[in-house]
Amino acid sequence: MTDLSLDFKKQGGLLPVIVTDFQTGQVLMLAYMNEEAYQKTLDSKEMYYWSRSRNELWHKGDTSGHYQYVKSIKTDCDQDTLLIAVEQVGAACHTGAYSCFFNEIYNPE
Amino acid sequence: MTDLSLDFKKQGGLLPVIVTDFQTGQVLMLAYMNEEAYQKTLDSKEMYYWSRSRNELWHKGDTSGHYQYVKSIKTDCDQDTLLIAVEQVGAACHTGAYSCFFNEIYNPE
Repeated sequence: MTDLSLDFKKQGGLLPVIVTDFQTGQVLMLAYMNEEAYQKTLDSKEMYYWSRSRNELWHKGDTSGHYQYVKSIKTDCDQDTLLIAVEQVGAACHTGAYSCFFNEIYNPE
Repeated sequence: MTDLSLDFKKQGGLLPVIVTDFQTGQVLMLAYMNEEAYQKTLDSKEMYYWSRSRNELWHKGDTSGHYQYVKSIKTDCDQDTLLIAVEQVGAACHTGAYSCFFNEIYNPE
């Protein structure tokens, strides 16, 4: 644990969080944490977010059972983004897809 | 190429973009595109962003030489985030690090 201070101010109290599968590195989703969600995540090692659509704290898995267990946490050079590797129960996406990134826009192969 | 319509409205005209190394899948950085940056990226297959600190269009590599060549583009379930795999010239981070995510906050191993 370091004393890096995260920059919650840049986006009005929210930090974007890139979530990856800790085993494969696959990007699963992007969501947002406020300071409370971040602190609860650090304390419990389960992912909490701030839901921008529902405007409330969101403990991932509470309704779906699809909990995310924290394996590692990093931040970037200017400390305004988190990269968190998780063990994903079930699927990350509310659609049932394992990753939210299933829409291909460009792929020449 | 699909006709998915991206949701630029949710964050005041900007879309967060997760950038990964196309060979390893490693997350390199998070940055933002407005519609112009996105269109230029699609057209040129080189990464353009909107710089929130400088408030200007930013062709990654123009000053550093560290261009990013687009290999694939995906969007997520609600089309408000992009995931773009690139071939990275040099380093993604302005610090010289290959990835911007070099600050460890939590890693029990």
